[in-house]
Order: sequence, then C-alpha cells, then structure tokens
Amino acid sequence: GSPAAKKPCKGLSYEARAQLPHVHPMACQLLKLMAEKQSNLCASADVTDAKELLEVADALGPHICMLKTHVDILHNFTPDVTSQLSKLAAKHSFLIFEDRKFADIGNTVKHQYEGGLYQIASWSNIINAHAVPGSGVVKGLEAVGKPLGRGCLLIAEMSSQGSLATGAYTQAVVKMAEDHADFVFGFICGSRISSKPEFINMTPGVHMQSAGDSLGQQYNSPEDVILKKGSDVIIVGRGILAAPDRVKAADAYRKAGWEAYMRRLSLTN
Amino acid sequence: GSPAAKKPCKGLSYEARAQLPHVHPMACQLLKLMAEKQSNLCASADVTDAKELLEVADALGPHICMLKTHVDILHNFTPDVTSQLSKLAAKHSFLIFEDRKFADIGNTVKHQYEGGLYQIASWSNIINAHAVPGSGVVKGLEAVGKPLGRGCLLIAEMSSQGSLATGAYTQAVVKMAEDHADFVFGFICGSRISSKPEFINMTPGVHMQSAGDSLGQQYNSPEDVILKKGSDVIIVGRGILAAPDRVKAADAYRKAGWEAYMRRLSLTN
Repeated sequence: GSPAAKKPCKGLSYEARAQLPHVHPMACQLLKLMAEKQSNLCASADVTDAKELLEVADALGPHICMLKTHVDILHNFTPDVTSQLSKLAAKHSFLIFEDRKFADIGNTVKHQYEGGLYQIASWSNIINAHAVPGSGVVKGLEAVGKPLGRGCLLIAEMSSQGSLATGAYTQAVVKMAEDHADFVFGFICGSRISSKPEFINMTPGVHMQSAGDSLGQQYNSPEDVILKKGSDVIIVGRGILAAPDRVKAADAYRKAGWEAYMRRLSLTN
Repeated sequence: GSPAAKKPCKGLSYEARAQLPHVHPMACQLLKLMAEKQSNLCASADVTDAKELLEVADALGPHICMLKTHVDILHNFTPDVTSQLSKLAAKHSFLIFEDRKFADIGNTVKHQYEGGLYQIASWSNIINAHAVPGSGVVKGLEAVGKPLGRGCLLIAEMSSQGSLATGAYTQAVVKMAEDHADFVFGFICGSRISSKPEFINMTPGVHMQSAGDSLGQQYNSPEDVILKKGSDVIIVGRGILAAPDRVKAADAYRKAGWEAYMRRLSLTN
C-alpha cells in the first residue's frame, strides 16, 4: 500500500485518505469536500415542512459537508422537493444522506430504496442500514445503489440510551462492512470502530450544551467525538435547528469540529 | 390469575388467551377474530401498485386475520388507498399491519409514525419496530399510537440468513416487550420466544414449497411454525402472491395453519 496506509488512521488527513488505493468513490468525494470546505459537519434537517427543509439546506449549505434528511416526515413532500434539494447540494457542494435506516430483508429494501413515492435511490447520495437482518439487506440495497454510484453506511452503534448495537453486534457490523466494501463506505458509530482508514466514521448525538432528551437521546461534544473518539464526521440536529440563529450555530459547530480535527492531526503527527 | 393462565401457552386456545386479564386490547381483538375466521394467516401484500394492493386485500380478506403492508413501495400511493384499505379491513374483518420496521431514536420515529405522506398511525392497526435503538423507539411510537388504540410488535428474530437478532439480542427484545406491555403486544420471531400467553408470536418466511431466495430469505412450512415452533400467526408473502391462483393458495395456507393449530391443541390437552 501507499505510505499513508501505514500511518494510524487518527493521524491521517482527510486529503491523504481520499487518495488511498482502495477508498470507495463516495468516501473519496466526501473526504475531498471536507478538506476543501474545512467542514466535518453533517447537519440533520429534521423538519416537517418541505419549504423549511430547502431553506435550511440553502442557508447551512456553505458550512456543511453533508445534509442528513428524513423525507418521510415531510407533510408536503413532492418529487420537486428532492430535485430542488439536489440543486442546492450542487450549488453548495454537500452530499445528501437520507437517514432511512433500512432494516428489512433484501427483497423488500430493494423496493423501499428504489420505489415508492420517495424514490430515494434517485436523489440521495448516501443511505444507511441496520445490519440486524444479516447481509441480505446490504445485497438488496447494493443491487439498486451501486449502478447509480451511491454509497451506504452501516449503523454500528447508536446514540440512544439502551441501544442493543454494542459488543458482538457492533463487531458483526464491522465485519459486514468489510465484506461489502464495494457499497458500504463507513459507519454510524459513537467512536471510530474500524482501523481501516478507508471507512468514514460518522457520529450522531452531538451537541455543545445539552446532555439529552426525554426519549433516550444522549449527547456528546464535537471535541469528544472528533478528538477523543476518533470519529470523522459530527452529525448535529437540534444543536443547530433549535438555535436562535441556525447559520451562526452551524458555523460554530463547523469550527469546533474542524479545530478538533486539526488538533487531532497535530497530536498524532 | 385465571385457570387458563396456568396452562402452558402452546395448549391454550386463541379464545382462552383473548380472555386473559392482562391481554392487550389489540391482542384480544386479533385472537378473537382468528378464532372466528379459523385463520392464523397474515398475508404479505408486497405489491408495488395500489390498485393491485386493494384487489389483493379484497380477494384474500375472507381468508386472513391480518394484512401486512409496505405502503412505501407503492408507486401510486394516495391517502385514498389507505382509506379504501381500511374499508376492506372492516368488510372482511382483518387487521392492517404496516411492516415499517421503525428503527430510529424516539424523537424521530414519532414523526415517521404520525406524519409524512403516509400518516401510518392514522390507518394501521399494528406496526412493528426493531429494538436496536433501545427502549426510546417504543416510547416514541407509544406516545403516538397508544392514544389511538394501536399496538406494536417487536422484531425479536428475523427469517433472513445471518440475522443478528439472536441470543442475547433476542432476550433483550423480550425484556423490552415485557417492560412496555401497554403498547407492545407481541413479536416477530422464528418460534415462540415468550412464555407469556398474552403475547402474540408471528413468524415470517413461511412457504409450503420453496426453501429461500437469492437475497438470504429462508423459509419454513406452516406446520413447522405453528406446531413445532409454537408460533401463533404465519406470515406468507410469495407463497401466495406468486401462486397462479392467489385465493386458492391463501385458503391452502389458512387451512394448513389452522390444522397445525388444532393439532397443537389436541397434543397439549
């Protein structure tokens, strides 16, 4: 491998990892735009109105590397919404990640990913899946998404209290990702869970002030997630959406995430 | 408890279980209509056209206790589809089970269950959830579904190859169900996994001929599932939908499932 491949993952820059010989095209694209935009921030656009979703995407676009969506909570979804969203993604250089958490057998997730009213495969660069059904879930999604150049994240850990994605379960997810690295390019996790620098580690439940909600969500700070836990991308929802000034909050999270990354690089080199 | 509660679960009739003092209203309603219709058959309506879904529901209605849907694979869903479906459910006395497999944190599943284009809570009697996020997923769903008189199944096991829902995971799901029995009234499982006769055990992957598909699905016969494995409801998809005569196939599955149940009762009493 390249010299970069021999350095510990936490000490490799995003740019260096984008050049690794076995990096997935989606990971490569993401790592490059993170470096360009100096942003390891994924914003969660958990809003229920399509107009607000597009406003959030346009306003936060310059500060984020990725926008995480739940189109199935929009009360006024139309195909035009995702086509507008794709235009905003191109305008501001961010990737779209529909957080669908596919979790069924292969034959079913194929239809859920490709069809229905949402036609997720046609507009979402990135999707995610739970590994609990076994590898058929990835094979079903891959049959639809790989020809379109999409990529998938496996949910290895969750930020919610009492999650069963721990221990042997998490290890099985890592194995499943390694076995399907043609389509799976990373994880949703609490901390870096694979030593392979080709995989992107993304961590939800990030907040600078709050400790949690009444339905089991638990929060960590950007510094914790990037510096101590060695993750690559912070996923921030209510920390931005519930802020009085969303753009200001997004930029504060971007800065905090980026500074933690720079600090990590300086400590490990 | 009642005398019935002291008998082993496999030997209790559906009618007797419907009378148990702590039975969930949804389980009670289901057990009664199973006894009335002599059917422990849930048909999977995995079709992508809304007109075909309604045709299937009307044709199979007399033979089934429940119709399992994936409305998110319909290319032409409108709110009228679910209102027509509810009318057919009333006409033929079956329950509607949207197999959404909710699997996110509580705050998100609340919106996914209640809102979006599908408004699942407004028409689906029964939904299901993965336990992997921890108990917040049930709390979030319960906040929406309990006031509407809905019920939830937890996915304790899956029929797909290499599923991670085994061992300690499955045991944690049983515990979660027991802790939330106000809303959770049963399981998706391969075989009876709770000794409590109040819980309904429903088993997917049932087929009289085939052994599996190319994406990891694995099949068992109705006799295996009801008689040997002690489950309560057989879930049949392609065994009916891919048959040359769907109604004839549904009635064959209904008979096979019912005879296995009668045999089980005769062997245990």
